[in-house]
Amino acid sequence: MRPASEDDILAIVSRFFPTGHPSLLLDRGDDCAVLRPSGPLAVTTDVFAEDAHFRQRYFTPFDIGWKALAVNISDVGSSGAKPAGFSIGLTLTGKEDSVWLESFCQGMTALTDRFDLAISGGDLARSPLLNICVTAWGELPAELPRGLRRGVAQEGDIIFLAGSVGLARLGLTALEKTVSSEDVASTAEHWPAACAQHLRPMPLASEGMALGRFAVEHGLQDRIGLMDVSDGLARDLPRLLDRRKNGLGADIRIDANNIHPEVRLYCSQNGMDAASFAFMGGEDYALAATCPADAWPELEVLLSSFSVPCLRLGTVRRGPVTLNGKAPDSAGFDHFSA
Amino acid sequence: MRPASEDDILAIVSRFFPTGHPSLLLDRGDDCAVLRPSGPLAVTTDVFAEDAHFRQRYFTPFDIGWKALAVNISDVGSSGAKPAGFSIGLTLTGKEDSVWLESFCQGMTALTDRFDLAISGGDLARSPLLNICVTAWGELPAELPRGLRRGVAQEGDIIFLAGSVGLARLGLTALEKTVSSEDVASTAEHWPAACAQHLRPMPLASEGMALGRFAVEHGLQDRIGLMDVSDGLARDLPRLLDRRKNGLGADIRIDANNIHPEVRLYCSQNGMDAASFAFMGGEDYALAATCPADAWPELEVLLSSFSVPCLRLGTVRRGPVTLNGKAPDSAGFDHFSA
Repeated sequence: MRPASEDDILAIVSRFFPTGHPSLLLDRGDDCAVLRPSGPLAVTTDVFAEDAHFRQRYFTPFDIGWKALAVNISDVGSSGAKPAGFSIGLTLTGKEDSVWLESFCQGMTALTDRFDLAISGGDLARSPLLNICVTAWGELPAELPRGLRRGVAQEGDIIFLAGSVGLARLGLTALEKTVSSEDVASTAEHWPAACAQHLRPMPLASEGMALGRFAVEHGLQDRIGLMDVSDGLARDLPRLLDRRKNGLGADIRIDANNIHPEVRLYCSQNGMDAASFAFMGGEDYALAATCPADAWPELEVLLSSFSVPCLRLGTVRRGPVTLNGKAPDSAGFDHFSA
Repeated sequence: MRPASEDDILAIVSRFFPTGHPSLLLDRGDDCAVLRPSGPLAVTTDVFAEDAHFRQRYFTPFDIGWKALAVNISDVGSSGAKPAGFSIGLTLTGKEDSVWLESFCQGMTALTDRFDLAISGGDLARSPLLNICVTAWGELPAELPRGLRRGVAQEGDIIFLAGSVGLARLGLTALEKTVSSEDVASTAEHWPAACAQHLRPMPLASEGMALGRFAVEHGLQDRIGLMDVSDGLARDLPRLLDRRKNGLGADIRIDANNIHPEVRLYCSQNGMDAASFAFMGGEDYALAATCPADAWPELEVLLSSFSVPCLRLGTVRRGPVTLNGKAPDSAGFDHFSA
């Protein structure tokens, strides 16, 4: 099919994304859209760039649309905010036809529908590689004016995880080895959960908001730490603890039984330690969190209501971050650029 | 010099952009920054992409930083909002050294200082071409909850311009002909105002805010139309009038004496009509506006206080858009892609 013209593109976008939304005072289509914030706004920006974050060889246009938005919603949710809207700076190559664009939009609307997001507008440019820059925002309750954030942990706090880790790294590893579309199909069949986690991670925004509400209800706004795990626990846990500033570490315990079976299978086939693999793996967009030990029993009840597996990882302490009693293998997940 | 590493880049950015700002409840550095909006927020996103919007041959890194931000501030200002902050999705090629990055940051901070902007964060990626995606926002007064916008003009309204048009197109035309850095230097010497307007347009945000205040003071929130002229009057005037919906046009008169001398000189040297050239020219980021005829005398007083030239362009009418009594030459400014 012929490449879509700029007018075609805008017509397709308009078909998928309504111009108006109750949270907008002025719809997109003007120099600016106008938001009506009801309280503090959590804002994040993530670039999703071809050959840096994804390859067209194994990402469908639906996957690209989904993940470009998902990684931003994940950031919003991990601040405890309710995702509300986004804008998009879309750089296309000029080769995309209308089928491609429709699929890309569908990948985004799958998430905008789920989270009831407004699209406030965006911009279109052309370049040899795809580049999708999303800025997303969410609304924080007045009682949580700075959101849930990193660096609030103290010695003795519990560290826990919502969602699983390691799967997306396995998906990336397996998909990077493919050379043909047949390869991609058989890889997706062989490692279905891993490929899905890499291609279409589900942002845990509802879970982040639930943790935000819990913090408010228990007066723990400044004592529950939260972030999404985009670069792997090995890199992100020190950030969660603000280790560089305060020297906090943790004794992390990951039992192989709590690791996804696909990861365990892959690691046993390749003579790797599954816990280390999971600890290093990035892009799962799980939530890593800290809480005071005395809040843990009640928090555990909340976590048991989540639709994703949750795991107590260990306890904050002065000293190094260790995994199952040993220093972790390396500094973490480095994506393609490694 | 050696290319800057990611850590170098972040260190340079931190040096130029403070992490905190009074308008942020939570500084950048976490999953999200948190804004404290005092009222409705005008939001815009513009991509500034190498070889689509600029060439490294004649844009210095300072110019790139400046213009990537300036075009967004211009959109915020043309809604009547006070520019307040921005986030940035920055895709670098990996060849930039620290001198390049410092100059790029200086181009941005020249504007953040001028407009007291918060930077809420951003993201960094790598790709063969530079791509800078900025999302900027500004605060609207409670009495101007939807901002100044397009499509409010009625028959008989006055159309006017703040800032000049045509210069940036001349700058682009002249700079596109250069092949060497000597060429660029001599072109900049030959057409100083035109090159400056193309490379470092000054967003007319104070002027947009002043028009917003005027609208509020005179109860004209829904009767003063405003937009910035990024694609040239030929393309943007029909958008300002929402011509496609309501068939409104205008009899535009541009006297050659009101066109910048560099544009007049260039046109006389090349046998072109200066008014047509100015009417077609894009990227000046002038403000085009409409107002009821009976507000014009008072508005003229306000415009006389602006630091940029202002010009009454004509009157809104039913019928075509004409320039000096004739149909304009073509549909407008098409940038490199033309």
